[in-house]
Amino acid sequence: MSNPVLVEVARSSLVESRHRGAVAVVDADGAMALAVGDVTIPVFPRSAVKALQALPLIESGAADRYGFGGEELALACSSHSGEAGHVAVVSRMLAKAGLDASALSCGAHWPLNQAAAFALAKAGAPSALHNNCSGKHAGFLCVACVQGIDHRGYWQPDHPVQQTVRDVLEDLTGAVLSPDRRGIDGCSVPTWAIPLQALAHAFAKFGSGHGLSRERAAAAVRLRGACAQTPWHVAGTGRFCTEIMKLFGARVFVKTGAEGMYCGALPGQGLGIAVKCDDGAGRAAEAIMAAVIARFLPLEPAEHAALARFIQPALRNWNGFEIGALRVTDALR
Amino acid sequence: MSNPVLVEVARSSLVESRHRGAVAVVDADGAMALAVGDVTIPVFPRSAVKALQALPLIESGAADRYGFGGEELALACSSHSGEAGHVAVVSRMLAKAGLDASALSCGAHWPLNQAAAFALAKAGAPSALHNNCSGKHAGFLCVACVQGIDHRGYWQPDHPVQQTVRDVLEDLTGAVLSPDRRGIDGCSVPTWAIPLQALAHAFAKFGSGHGLSRERAAAAVRLRGACAQTPWHVAGTGRFCTEIMKLFGARVFVKTGAEGMYCGALPGQGLGIAVKCDDGAGRAAEAIMAAVIARFLPLEPAEHAALARFIQPALRNWNGFEIGALRVTDALR
Repeated sequence: MSNPVLVEVARSSLVESRHRGAVAVVDADGAMALAVGDVTIPVFPRSAVKALQALPLIESGAADRYGFGGEELALACSSHSGEAGHVAVVSRMLAKAGLDASALSCGAHWPLNQAAAFALAKAGAPSALHNNCSGKHAGFLCVACVQGIDHRGYWQPDHPVQQTVRDVLEDLTGAVLSPDRRGIDGCSVPTWAIPLQALAHAFAKFGSGHGLSRERAAAAVRLRGACAQTPWHVAGTGRFCTEIMKLFGARVFVKTGAEGMYCGALPGQGLGIAVKCDDGAGRAAEAIMAAVIARFLPLEPAEHAALARFIQPALRNWNGFEIGALRVTDALR
Repeated sequence: MSNPVLVEVARSSLVESRHRGAVAVVDADGAMALAVGDVTIPVFPRSAVKALQALPLIESGAADRYGFGGEELALACSSHSGEAGHVAVVSRMLAKAGLDASALSCGAHWPLNQAAAFALAKAGAPSALHNNCSGKHAGFLCVACVQGIDHRGYWQPDHPVQQTVRDVLEDLTGAVLSPDRRGIDGCSVPTWAIPLQALAHAFAKFGSGHGLSRERAAAAVRLRGACAQTPWHVAGTGRFCTEIMKLFGARVFVKTGAEGMYCGALPGQGLGIAVKCDDGAGRAAEAIMAAVIARFLPLEPAEHAALARFIQPALRNWNGFEIGALRVTDALR
């Protein structure tokens, strides 16, 4: 099995590096609109399914009980950059549930945003609040608290919160999430290996509500609305997810995951998208996702131009000279 | 053409990501000891040939004229982390030639070393001294100054310094470096696309002196000696090049380059090594280089154990849990 080269990294007139990968675009009935490479082998979606993992936050009643608006819901779906505004919302979410940062089990890392990391380094060190997954973890904690469940161990596979999350993923993807498909994510919660085809199907349902219970479809509408309303809270300054959702609003949902993952939805087209770059490269996964959006979403000329810089980003060196470019291959056009 | 998978990234019991690549191991007569994947297609070696680019620093007489010792010579071969000790040596090199940081044309970036970046961010912003290539650039400037050539534009392909460097690369690699093989490197000097086979041959000559003029062989001995003597100046705290040369001293020379490149030499075995990871991943190139060393260098049991953590590094998450590992595939064993 060898997936095709989907992105080339050119330097002057030569190709310097190559990224292989696979892409599935599926409608809510499960019909394949595009399959490139092997879309049947299970892959770890990592953070690309955070929006699905956040559905219990609404379905449990926690979001209403704690009065969460768009910012909190977007944070629950986020891989945030650890900027001050992200950290403030996570703290607020925890406080609503009567908790603080000590309840988070995601581990600490420096903010992904460089300026935020530099500002933090002047005064101290990162806490779990700065972990890019802290919003998702705060959401899990809120689900436990609203249900009166002991929140300790909320990240472990046998905790009721993670069992609920697994049930939601099974419902949306149609995949059987047996223990042999389970890995441990960067933030220690389970990540379940699922074929791209099933992930794309899940996001078609998430984007359209088709095939979901009325309650689950309504929860999906709220989460998508929150992300479209305040995409900065889904990622952060200058990040791909934020920039794309700023460009397209509710017409596009996109979410990155580690190791070259991307999931997304085009609600107006009834399509879900799942991308995996074989080698784990985020730069390639972004270009692939941008190319898929350009292929399936009707675009105004100005939108097409805005998207082009993500499909074929110029590469500049430390002096600002344009020394090459990423470019999506014909396998995706 | 499809190079084999050389490194797998495992999470729990599944392979999450895969890195393809090619490896050449060649002796100083040009005989191939190992060829995996396509070793005949030209690739940009980037910073992996800095030690070859530094030969004119000695051959021109600049190193002697300016009284350079091991630290300065190692810096000229380095992709350094921008730590205080690196910056100090580069400043010293420039001062010896009557120059300062304003002569550097490499561009500025934040130190690769996180602690150094944080320390610098408290007080200011990076200069060209912090660029990982500043030692190489200081060497180029010294070559111009000792020869009484106008140093301005020393980074451009038609400047005498770069023409000398190109001639050296042609001599060692045996490749014809025509303009269609030329790219612009991250620090703006030319990078010449050269097959892995020819790069490995060049490093066999660099490591053994075989096939070089007496003067060039002596210059190679001095550069290798400097890197073995003070490998911290070739990279920096915790970096692969530094750690490997600390382990093996003069028995192994290794040098990283951007986009998944590695070159090296095993002087005692008379072998040169060149590695390119197709997708540009440094994590894979390091594991491949470590595996090649383990295959060709006779090792004490303790050395074998020390090298194992580079061949199959454990992957830990933000809580320190071991969630997987990189592992070199059978294609390399």
